[in-house]
This record gives sequence, structure tokens and C-alpha cells, in this order.
Amino acid sequence: MRIIVVGASGDIGQAACAELGQRHDLIRVGRSSGDFQLDMSDPLEVSKMFDRVQNVDAVVVTAGDAHFARLEEQTPESICFGLQQKVMGQINLVLAGLTRINDGGSFTLTSGVLDRDPIEMGVAAATANGALAGFVVGSSIEMPRQMRINVVSPGLLDVSVARYGQWFCGHEPVASERVGRAYAKSVEGRLTGQVLIVE
Amino acid sequence: MRIIVVGASGDIGQAACAELGQRHDLIRVGRSSGDFQLDMSDPLEVSKMFDRVQNVDAVVVTAGDAHFARLEEQTPESICFGLQQKVMGQINLVLAGLTRINDGGSFTLTSGVLDRDPIEMGVAAATANGALAGFVVGSSIEMPRQMRINVVSPGLLDVSVARYGQWFCGHEPVASERVGRAYAKSVEGRLTGQVLIVE
Repeated sequence: MRIIVVGASGDIGQAACAELGQRHDLIRVGRSSGDFQLDMSDPLEVSKMFDRVQNVDAVVVTAGDAHFARLEEQTPESICFGLQQKVMGQINLVLAGLTRINDGGSFTLTSGVLDRDPIEMGVAAATANGALAGFVVGSSIEMPRQMRINVVSPGLLDVSVARYGQWFCGHEPVASERVGRAYAKSVEGRLTGQVLIVE
Repeated sequence: MRIIVVGASGDIGQAACAELGQRHDLIRVGRSSGDFQLDMSDPLEVSKMFDRVQNVDAVVVTAGDAHFARLEEQTPESICFGLQQKVMGQINLVLAGLTRINDGGSFTLTSGVLDRDPIEMGVAAATANGALAGFVVGSSIEMPRQMRINVVSPGLLDVSVARYGQWFCGHEPVASERVGRAYAKSVEGRLTGQVLIVE
């Protein structure tokens, strides 16, 4: 398969690429690195990417920012930032890809643990994660051309502990290889409309 | 208790008011009706409301629009509309209320069935519902001053069947009284961080 991986250079993106790259042709996309550069929160840039990158069987998105701050320091703008970046960024790729990727293709989005196992300062990410789960469930029943959609929801990756572990007190790190396999399950399997939890 | 009910004139709002009004003092808020008029998607209007309506023990929100259309007709803007109206509208009330309502107060938001039991054309609502669930889980652990937050997620109300039933094929309507009691459970009980499903 030919697979676009948006966010390929991040910890989760690298885990997805390590697994999928064993069997598939990957087009690595990042904000400032990879085979193609993209700000996925801009629908016009997303559309241009699909004009340039053709014959795609699957889109994997492992990118998406949210603002981490204590609840009392969050503002409408800081919560909305995550909805624009993490949620709409991923949704932009699905909406644009619906008419562009091959029959039977798939979309695999990425949320995270914080909407089921919250941490201090994580409310904007939790909101974004929940939105992505709702989008996947809602859109899966209307996918055209035998296309599928899932979202991978991993816990904190082992490779991310050095940078983020202090915020995830008591969370059990997840082996990156297990996270990578969830992307393979979504892309190569037949599941659709699922939140694939990796804990 | 003194309870603000935003969206009081809607089907769900009326169900909440019928239950809560038996024991509490309600301030009914609507976009164009009620004791106070408010566009909750505007943080400035929300802030002004809390300046005018003081000594509040609970905020109940039963309002929030999303755009219903087939997936292939949805656009970034039409999905984002639900995030702005239904999600950020409700979140605006929480963020502004955090410093304004009484100690031990509560927020009760409203989502719906579509992120677990999707229908055609419901993807924007499903996305919004999921976001609200994530927000409630994420924010509940950081609520100051013994405050609580939950979201009620009702199926299609019996009183809504005449207007919306054609879109909810095979969905079992829910008695409005049962939906009303979920708001009482959230406001008068001790639960927090919960999605209160009424089916």
C-alpha cells in the first residue's frame, strides 16, 4: 500500500512508521520535515497535498497539538486551539481525502489516553481526544467506496517518558512497538468506527 | 438551590426544568426567550450574564447546535460550527462560571446519543458529543472549591419524535421524565466527571 503518515517524525509517528514501513510505501509528512510539509489545520494546504500526492491507499495522522494548562488558566481560546489543531487538523485530512484516496482506503487518526485517564493540565487534550472518537464513530457509517476510519488512542509511549513522564504520574508507559501494531491493525485489518486503545 | 438553565425552552431544557423546578429556583436562559437572553458561543455575553445573575449554585446547559448533513457534504466549516456552538458554547459557561458560582456548585452539560449510536448526517453532532465527554472527564479532576461537572447524554426524547424521529430510525425514544431525572442526579447528587447516559 501507499500510506501517507502525517506527523511521521513524532514519537507516535515513528512508532507507526517503524511498523508500517516494513510492508508498505510511506509518504512521510510533517510540519517542517519529511517528504512533504503541511500545516494540517489549513484545509487549503491539505487539499494541495492531495493534489501532489496521488494513488494513496491509507492516511495515518499522528499529529495534533493541544494547550496544556491548569483548568483555571484555560480560556475559550486555549481550549479552542486544540479543537482547531488536533481535531480539525485530523478531520481536514479525512474530509479532503474522502474523494482523493483509493477505493477501500482507510483513515487512522490519533487521540490519546487523557479523555479516559485524565491528568492535571490535560483538559484541552481530553476534549480533543473525545471529539476525535465521536468523529470516527459518526463518520464510519457514512464512509463511501468501502473506506474505513479508526482512531488509535495510546497511553504515554515509553520513548516519550523522558520528555513528558513528569506530567503522567503513575501512568504505565506503553511499548512503542505495541502502538505501532495498532496502526497496522487499523490500516491492514477490516475494523472501522473503532477507538483502538493501546495501554 | 439557584440554578441557571441555559436552553430552558428546548425539549431537553423543558425536561430538566420540569424536574429541577419542583425543588429549586430556576433562572431560565435562552437565545431569544427566558429570564435572560444569551448567545453562549460568545464568551463576552457569558461573562455579562454571570455579572447580572449572582448567587448561583448550579449551571445546567441543554443548548447547542450542530450542522446535520451527509458526511460527503460536510466541510471543515460545518464540522467546526458544532465545535463552536455546542462545544465551546457549553465550555464558555463552565470557564466563566468557575470563578462565579458558589462553593460546591455544579455544571451539568448536555451531549447526546450520536457518538455511541450514530445516524446518517450526524457526524458533526457526534464529534461535539465526544468533545463534551472528554471535557467533563478532563476538567472534573481540576474543579476548584468542591465543584463538580457531568454531562447528560440522552437518546431521542419522546417529545422530540414528531420533529426529529425520521432521522433516528429504530432509535427507542426516551421518556422526558427520565431525562429530567438525570439532571437532578447530576445537580443534587455527588457524582462528578461522569457521562450520564439516558436510554
